[in-house]
Amino acid sequence: MNSDNFNLSEKIVSPSYIRQGSQARRGHEQLIRQLLEQGKCPEEGWSESTVELFLSELAVMDSNNFLGNCGVGEREGRVASSLVARRHYRLIHGIGRSGDIAAIQPKAAGSSLLNKLTNSVVLDVLKLAGVRSVASCFVVPMATGMSLTLCFLTLRHRRPKARYIIWPRIDQKSCFKSMITAGFEPVVVENVLEGDELRTDLEAVERKIEELGAENILCVHSTTSCFAPRVPDRLEELSSLCSKHDIPHIVNNAYGVQSSKCMHLIQQGARVGRIDAFVQSLDKNFMVPVGGAIIAGFDESFIQEISKMYPGRASASPSLDVLITLLTLGVCGYKKYLSERKMFTDFTMLLSLPAMSLDGLQANSDKAVTQLGSMLFTRQVSGARVIPLGKEQTVSGHTFRGFMSHSESYPCPYLNAASAVGITREDVTVCIKRLDKCLKTLKKEGGAVSSSDQEVSIGE
Amino acid sequence: MNSDNFNLSEKIVSPSYIRQGSQARRGHEQLIRQLLEQGKCPEEGWSESTVELFLSELAVMDSNNFLGNCGVGEREGRVASSLVARRHYRLIHGIGRSGDIAAIQPKAAGSSLLNKLTNSVVLDVLKLAGVRSVASCFVVPMATGMSLTLCFLTLRHRRPKARYIIWPRIDQKSCFKSMITAGFEPVVVENVLEGDELRTDLEAVERKIEELGAENILCVHSTTSCFAPRVPDRLEELSSLCSKHDIPHIVNNAYGVQSSKCMHLIQQGARVGRIDAFVQSLDKNFMVPVGGAIIAGFDESFIQEISKMYPGRASASPSLDVLITLLTLGVCGYKKYLSERKMFTDFTMLLSLPAMSLDGLQANSDKAVTQLGSMLFTRQVSGARVIPLGKEQTVSGHTFRGFMSHSESYPCPYLNAASAVGITREDVTVCIKRLDKCLKTLKKEGGAVSSSDQEVSIGE
Amino acid sequence: MNSDNFNLSEKIVSPSYIRQGSQARRGHEQLIRQLLEQGKCPEEGWSESTVELFLSELAVMDSNNFLGNCGVGEREGRVASSLVARRHYRLIHGIGRSGDIAAIQPKAAGSSLLNKLTNSVVLDVLKLAGVRSVASCFVVPMATGMSLTLCFLTLRHRRPKARYIIWPRIDQKSCFKSMITAGFEPVVVENVLEGDELRTDLEAVERKIEELGAENILCVHSTTSCFAPRVPDRLEELSSLCSKHDIPHIVNNAYGVQSSKCMHLIQQGARVGRIDAFVQSLDKNFMVPVGGAIIAGFDESFIQEISKMYPGRASASPSLDVLITLLTLGVCGYKKYLSERKMFTDFTMLLSLPAMSLDGLQANSDKAVTQLGSMLFTRQVSGARVIPLGKEQTVSGHTFRGFMSHSESYPCPYLNAASAVGITREDVTVCIKRLDKCLKTLKKEGGAVSSSDQEVSIGE
Amino acid sequence: MNSDNFNLSEKIVSPSYIRQGSQARRGHEQLIRQLLEQGKCPEEGWSESTVELFLSELAVMDSNNFLGNCGVGEREGRVASSLVARRHYRLIHGIGRSGDIAAIQPKAAGSSLLNKLTNSVVLDVLKLAGVRSVASCFVVPMATGMSLTLCFLTLRHRRPKARYIIWPRIDQKSCFKSMITAGFEPVVVENVLEGDELRTDLEAVERKIEELGAENILCVHSTTSCFAPRVPDRLEELSSLCSKHDIPHIVNNAYGVQSSKCMHLIQQGARVGRIDAFVQSLDKNFMVPVGGAIIAGFDESFIQEISKMYPGRASASPSLDVLITLLTLGVCGYKKYLSERKMFTDFTMLLSLPAMSLDGLQANSDKAVTQLGSMLFTRQVSGARVIPLGKEQTVSGHTFRGFMSHSESYPCPYLNAASAVGITREDVTVCIKRLDKCLKTLKKEGGAVSSSDQEVSIGE
Repeated sequence: MNSDNFNLSEKIVSPSYIRQGSQARRGHEQLIRQLLEQGKCPEEGWSESTVELFLSELAVMDSNNFLGNCGVGEREGRVASSLVARRHYRLIHGIGRSGDIAAIQPKAAGSSLLNKLTNSVVLDVLKLAGVRSVASCFVVPMATGMSLTLCFLTLRHRRPKARYIIWPRIDQKSCFKSMITAGFEPVVVENVLEGDELRTDLEAVERKIEELGAENILCVHSTTSCFAPRVPDRLEELSSLCSKHDIPHIVNNAYGVQSSKCMHLIQQGARVGRIDAFVQSLDKNFMVPVGGAIIAGFDESFIQEISKMYPGRASASPSLDVLITLLTLGVCGYKKYLSERKMFTDFTMLLSLPAMSLDGLQANSDKAVTQLGSMLFTRQVSGARVIPLGKEQTVSGHTFRGFMSHSESYPCPYLNAASAVGITREDVTVCIKRLDKCLKTLKKEGGAVSSSDQEVSIGE
Repeated sequence: MNSDNFNLSEKIVSPSYIRQGSQARRGHEQLIRQLLEQGKCPEEGWSESTVELFLSELAVMDSNNFLGNCGVGEREGRVASSLVARRHYRLIHGIGRSGDIAAIQPKAAGSSLLNKLTNSVVLDVLKLAGVRSVASCFVVPMATGMSLTLCFLTLRHRRPKARYIIWPRIDQKSCFKSMITAGFEPVVVENVLEGDELRTDLEAVERKIEELGAENILCVHSTTSCFAPRVPDRLEELSSLCSKHDIPHIVNNAYGVQSSKCMHLIQQGARVGRIDAFVQSLDKNFMVPVGGAIIAGFDESFIQEISKMYPGRASASPSLDVLITLLTLGVCGYKKYLSERKMFTDFTMLLSLPAMSLDGLQANSDKAVTQLGSMLFTRQVSGARVIPLGKEQTVSGHTFRGFMSHSESYPCPYLNAASAVGITREDVTVCIKRLDKCLKTLKKEGGAVSSSDQEVSIGE
Repeated sequence: MNSDNFNLSEKIVSPSYIRQGSQARRGHEQLIRQLLEQGKCPEEGWSESTVELFLSELAVMDSNNFLGNCGVGEREGRVASSLVARRHYRLIHGIGRSGDIAAIQPKAAGSSLLNKLTNSVVLDVLKLAGVRSVASCFVVPMATGMSLTLCFLTLRHRRPKARYIIWPRIDQKSCFKSMITAGFEPVVVENVLEGDELRTDLEAVERKIEELGAENILCVHSTTSCFAPRVPDRLEELSSLCSKHDIPHIVNNAYGVQSSKCMHLIQQGARVGRIDAFVQSLDKNFMVPVGGAIIAGFDESFIQEISKMYPGRASASPSLDVLITLLTLGVCGYKKYLSERKMFTDFTMLLSLPAMSLDGLQANSDKAVTQLGSMLFTRQVSGARVIPLGKEQTVSGHTFRGFMSHSESYPCPYLNAASAVGITREDVTVCIKRLDKCLKTLKKEGGAVSSSDQEVSIGE
Repeated sequence: MNSDNFNLSEKIVSPSYIRQGSQARRGHEQLIRQLLEQGKCPEEGWSESTVELFLSELAVMDSNNFLGNCGVGEREGRVASSLVARRHYRLIHGIGRSGDIAAIQPKAAGSSLLNKLTNSVVLDVLKLAGVRSVASCFVVPMATGMSLTLCFLTLRHRRPKARYIIWPRIDQKSCFKSMITAGFEPVVVENVLEGDELRTDLEAVERKIEELGAENILCVHSTTSCFAPRVPDRLEELSSLCSKHDIPHIVNNAYGVQSSKCMHLIQQGARVGRIDAFVQSLDKNFMVPVGGAIIAGFDESFIQEISKMYPGRASASPSLDVLITLLTLGVCGYKKYLSERKMFTDFTMLLSLPAMSLDGLQANSDKAVTQLGSMLFTRQVSGARVIPLGKEQTVSGHTFRGFMSHSESYPCPYLNAASAVGITREDVTVCIKRLDKCLKTLKKEGGAVSSSDQEVSIGE
C-alpha cells in the first residue's frame, strides 16, 4: 500500500501499529530494492511471502492486469482458465519480442523486468559457481540440446561454408542430435582410455581439424559434465586449439554448474583460449522442472547474437521457476546444496568406478546386466544406469559401438550413479541397500530372472 | 480412494452417505475414463475440481512423487522451491526423451500421459475447428517462429541441396526470422493489390520456382492468419503449385485456429494439393500464456520426423496450460468463444479497412500518425496498430519498404485492430470511445502533440 | 513497489513502460483507498488480482510476517504447515483480543484492519439489503445458533432475574437449542393457521408475557427467514409489544439478508418498536463456507456489549471469506445474485405450498412420504425437505408434535424447497425433472419401494 | 484413478510404467488406509502431495462437489468466490449438524469424515503428549475462552442451582471472562508466594467451598499452563478436593499440550481425583491460526454432552488446519518441535525469574518499566511481557490489584518470555541481543525516553 493508504489505515487501527506494519513493508521493499539495484542473487534467501509480493508487483505492471485495459490485438495476454492464470502468477505475456528473446515488451513491463532480472541473477550465480569472467547469459525456454542447436545455427551465419562439428564422444543422444538438427555433420572423436578413465583424445582432434580444414569446421563441441569413467573434456587444451585455429568453441556444460570442477575448467579454458558459449540445463543445476537452459559466454555481443536468433517470443515459465528458486534459496541456500552434493561424490564414485564393475555378473549371464537395471527400476531406484558391454545403437544415422560407455571397447560393464544437486543422505543409503539386495538375488538365481522384473528400458 | 478405503470410511461415517460419496467419485472417474478412452476434448467442460483431481492423479504416477523413491541420477525431478512444485502440480519431469519430444519417459508415466493426451485433445480440436483430415500433431514448448524453424530444419535432411524458401510477404518479424535462423534464404514475393486487399501473387511465386529450380527450394512458406488489408494466402493454389513442382509446403497458421476461414483454407489446400505441416500458436488461439505452438500435418510420419528432430526433453508447461484450458472449456466453451469472436469481426473490419484510413491525419502532420499509436498505448488501448506510410525496416539483413503494411506501396496509412478469441463487447466499446477521443484531440491540435504522449514503439 | 523501486526499474526496462506499470498499480491502490476511506462494499467487484494484492498487503503488516521479527511469546502466529499458512494468506493471528472480539491486536495490524473493514463492509451491505438504520454489526466465527446464545448470555447481565425466552415456534433445532445452551427456558408459542400459512399468534405471545411477568422474561426471540407455509413472524407487532413491555427482542434472521421482505420487516420492526439485535448466517446469505454469523443492531453500545462478551480471540477465517466474497462481487454482483434468486421464488412457492401437498402419496402408504425424501437424496437432489404428518421429536427435553411442520397439526404432508441465493435455472429444471420421476415411480409402486432407496435421514 | 482408468492408460503409455505409477498410487492409499483404520496420527509425516490428494478425495464426497448435484435448499455449500472455494479445498459444509457439533452431515460425507478423523487424531496426540487415559475429545472452532464458557454452560444443566466458580487467580482476561460470559460469579482465590513462585492456595480453596456450599458451586476452574513465577495449579490436590466434595473440575490447559509437565499434571489429577474436562488452544499448541480449541475429558458421555450443547453447525476451518498440520508433521515431527521447545526453557526461565527482575530499572523511573515493553515492541521483539508493580485493572466489574503479576503484591517488577512450540534458536539469540541494547539505553538515559518509543500497550 502507498503512504495515503497507510494514513487512512491509521484512522481505523491504532497509528503505532500501522506504522510498525508500514515499516515491516519497507523491509520487503528493501530486499526488492537490492535486487533491482544490484541484479544479484540475494545472500540470504527471501521468505515465500517476499517472493510472492514481488511477483504480484510484477504482474500488476503487465497490461493484461491493467484494470482499465482495452485489448484489441491478437495477443493480449488473455487467459481462459483461472487455474492457468494463477499458476503463472498472472504473468502471461512470456518473454522477449519477435526480434529478440531478450527484448523488452511494451505490453508487459513486469514480464520484461522478470526476464532481465532472471538473466542478471543467473549470471551472478554462474560467477559465484566459478566462471568469474562470464560476461553475459540468458535463460531460454528450451532444454540443453535445442539450446546447443540454437548456438550452432547462430554460428552458421558467421561461418557460412562450415559443414562439420568436431565432437569428442559422449554417449548422450540429445547433444549428438543437437548437431544433426542444426544441419551439421558431427565428427566423432573417440576417447582414449587412461587407467580407468576415458579422456579427450587431443591429438585426434587436432588431426581432424587439419584433415577437414578449419574453415570447414563450424566449431568444436566439447563436454564438461559427465559420469565416470568418462571424465570432462580437456577444456584448456581444446580452447587453446580453437584459439590457435580460429575455430569457435561451444561447451556442453549440461549439469556442470553444480560442479566446481566443471566450472573451473570453463573459467580456465576461456582464460587461456577460446570458448564462445557454454550451455547448461536449468533443471539439472537448479532443481526446477525440465525445459530451460542458460546460454552463457564471455563476449556479450555474441551472446546477444544468439538471443536475437530465437525467432519470436518465448515462455517465461523456466525463467519464473529459476528466479523463484534462486530468490528463495539465496546464495547461502544454493551453496549449501552444492556442498551437500559434494559430500556424496564419494558414494557415486564408488558406484561408478570399476569397483562396481559388473564383470562377475556378466559371467553368469548376458541378460543379468540389463536385468539389474530393470530390477533397480522396479524397486524405485531411479537414475542408476547399468552400462552393458558392446551395445550398438544408431542415432540419426550414426552407429555407435559400445553405446552408453562412451567408448567402442570399454573393458567391463558397470553401474553408474550421480551425486547431483539435491541428493540426500537417505537417497544414498536406500540405494545401497536396494542394490545390495538386487545383486544378491541375481547372483543366487544365476541369471534366472523372476518374471515380475520385466525388461524396462531405463536409458535417457 | 480405493474401495478398501471407502469400506473403512463406512465404519466412521454412515454407510449410505459414504456410498453416495463413492458414487460421486465415480462421476469424476467416468469423465477421466472418457478422456483416456477417446482422447478427445470433452463436449462439456470439466469442473476445476475434476481437472485438479486428474492432475494430482497424473502427478502421483511420476517417480519424483513416489513415496519410496530413491533417486541417484542427475535428473530426478527434484524441486527446491515448494512454490515451484505447486505451480506445476508436481509434474516436474517435462515431456519427451532425448530421442524424441513425443516419447514416453520411464521415470514419468504421469507426465507422459499428460503429453500424449494433450496432443490427442489438441488434434481433436484442430479437426473440430475445420481441418477435418489432419492426421497428427504435437505441442512444442516454443513459440510459432521457432517451431517453423524446426520444420525447416527437418526438411533440410530431406532436401540437402535446397537453399531458398519462397515466402509471400507478410510483415511480421518472427516468421521472417524463422527462415533466417534455420539458415535459409527467404525469397520475398510481394503481394498484389486487389481493390483494398493485398493478395498472394501466384504468378510471381511460380516464376520464382522456375527461376531458382524446384530442387533448390526447401519449401513454400505461406501464411493464413493476418490482418486486413493483407488477406490469407491463396492456399489452394499454392498447395497445387507445390504438388505440381514437388516442393514441400509449410503453412504459418499463427492465430488461424480461431478462424473458420483459415482452417477451411488449410483443409482445402491439403485436399487439392500439398501441405506438409501447419503451425499455430497456443497463446493466440487458446488463451494460454505465451510460449507454445502446435505443429500439425496430414502425414503422420513427417510430423513424427519433426518431433524426433527436437533434441532432448522439453517443458511440459505449455502442454499443461492448454490441456487445463481445453478440459475446462470443453468443446462447447471453446466454440462459444469462437462465435463471440466472430461477432466482433465487423468491428475490426471497420477499424482496419480504408474506412479507418488515416489519410486526413497524414495531411496534418507526418508525426500525427505515429502519435496516434502512442496516444492509444498511453490510454491503455493495447493491440491496435497504426500503420504509417513508407516505413523502411531492415530485418536480418533484408530491407522491407513500407514495413508493417505488407506492401512496398500501400496507398494510405491506416489503423488496425484484431477480433481475436477472448475479445469482449466491452473491449470494443471502450476502444471506439478512446479512439474517438484521440482522433478529436489530434485533429484539434493539428499535430501539435501534448508532451505527455511520448513516442512509444508499439509494434510487435 | 514504492517509488524508489519503480525508479530503479526504469533503468532496467524502458521508463515509459515502467511508468505505465506504476500507473496501473495506482489503479489498484485507488480501489484500496476507497475501501479504507469509505469502509463500504465497492460498487463494482474487484478483480482477483486486486483482492490478492490487498490481502498480501494486510499480511505483511502482521508481526508473524515481519522479516526481522523475534517472537518469544506463546502466541506468535507461528505456522508449522505451509499449506495452512498459504490458505490463510499468512494471516494467522485471528481477530480480537482477550477483552473484545472487535478489539485491535498490537501484533497484528493487518488482521485488525481486516476485522474492522469486514465489519464495516458487512454493515454497508446490511443497509443496502434493506435495514437502512442498522447502527452496528460484527462478524463472529460461530454459526447462527451459537451467536444467538451469545446474545442471550449478554442480556442475562442486564436482566439477572429473567428465566424465560418467548419463542414463536419454528421447527429448526439449533435456534431452539441456542436458548437451552444459554441456560434459559424457551416458552414455545404455537403458530396459528391462516389459510395455508402459519403465522405468529400475537395474542398468545402477549398472554404469555402477562402470565410470566415481563421482568422474568429475558427476551422475545422471533424469526424472519423460514419456509412456506410457515411465514416470517409479525415483526412490527412483536417489536411494539416488546417496546410496550420493556422486553428485549432478538431476531433470528438466519437466511434473511437475501430476502428483501425479511430485511424490510426488521427495518420496520426497529422503526415502530424494539429490536435489540438480529442475527444472520454468513454462509446462507453470502455463499461462504459454514461457520460464521453477523450480529447486528440499532444501538451501537449494545452490540459492543455483545462483542465484549466473547471471551478471547477468534478465527479470522469467516471474516476473510466474507470480505473476499463481497470485494469480488461488489454491490452489483451481490444484487445480481439476489435478483436471480427472486426469479426462482415462484418455483419454490410452487413446490412448497399445498399445490405440492403429498396427500395422494400419503393415502398409498405411510412410508411413501419419507421414501420420497430418500429417493430425492439418492438422486442427488439436496435441500428438498419432505414434511410428513405427525412426527414427534424431543429436543433438549422438549417434545414437539408435528415436528418439521412448525405446527402441532398441519393439515397435510408436503414438500419444501428453497430459492436461496446462488440457485440457478439448472438447479430448478433438474429438480423438477427428478421429482417428477420419483413421484411417478412412487405412484406406480404403490409404496413398494425399491431396496436401493434406503431410508436416509435428510433433516437438518 | 480406478483400475479401469489405469488399464486404459496402459494403452497410451507403456504398461510397465503405468503399473509402476499405479503401484505408487497404492502407496498413498496405504497411508490413507492406516489413518482410516487406526484413526491415529501417522508416525512419519505425510508429504504435501498425500495430504492434498486426501483432501481432494474428501471434497469429492461432499454434495456441493457432486457433478450432477441439484441443490434446492438454503444451505447447499454454494461458494461465490473461487478464491474462497480453493482455500477451503472445496470443503464448504462445515462440521456438525444442528443437533450436535460432532454429528454426521448427510450432505457432506467428506466433511463429516474430516471432522471424525480430526477428533480421533487429536485424541491420539493428547495421549502421546501425556494424558494417556483421556477418553474423548473434539475440536471446536472457538478459542479457549469461549470453549471454557461452553463447558460451564453444559454444567449448568447438571447443577441448576450453582452460581459460583472457584478460580485460583491467573491474570489472563479471557479465562476470567469465560466465567462471566457463562453467567457465573468467579470466586477469585489469591495465590501464595513460595520462594519466587506463586502457587495454588489449597486451603483457601477448600475454605471457599465450605463457605459457599458445594451445591452452589458450579465447578473449580484451574489452570496448568502459565508463565513463571506463577506455576501450574496443584492439580492433583484440586482434583482430590473436587472428588471429595463432588464438585466438577474444569482445567484451562491453554498452551499445556506442548508441556509434558502440564500434561502429566492432568493425567495425575484424573487418576487420583476428578477432572471433568480440560481445554486447550489449537493455535498455541499446534502452530495453526488462532480460533480453535480442543475440549477433552475422561468420561465420553460428558464430552458428548458438551458437543451436543453447541447449537448448530460450525466452521471446519480449525479442524482442517490441525489435521493438515498433524498429518504433515507426523508424531515424529511434532515430538521434534516439543523437544526443541524444551531446549529453550532455560532461556525463558532466565528471562522470567527474578534474575531478570527489573528492580534496578524501577528505581530509576516509574516509567522505565513500561517503557521497556514499548521499546521491545518497536524493535520487533514480540511476546515478551514486562510486568510492572501494582497495576490495577478492572475486568467485567472485578478489580484486580497487581494485574499481570497474578498476585496482589508480587515483590518486584519483571520481564517474561515464553519458550513455546515453534520457537527457534534465532528467536532466542536475537531477543537477548535486543533486550540487552534496550536495557543499556534505558539505564543510560535514566528514564529519559526517546520520543520514537511511544507507549504501546502490549498486553494480551
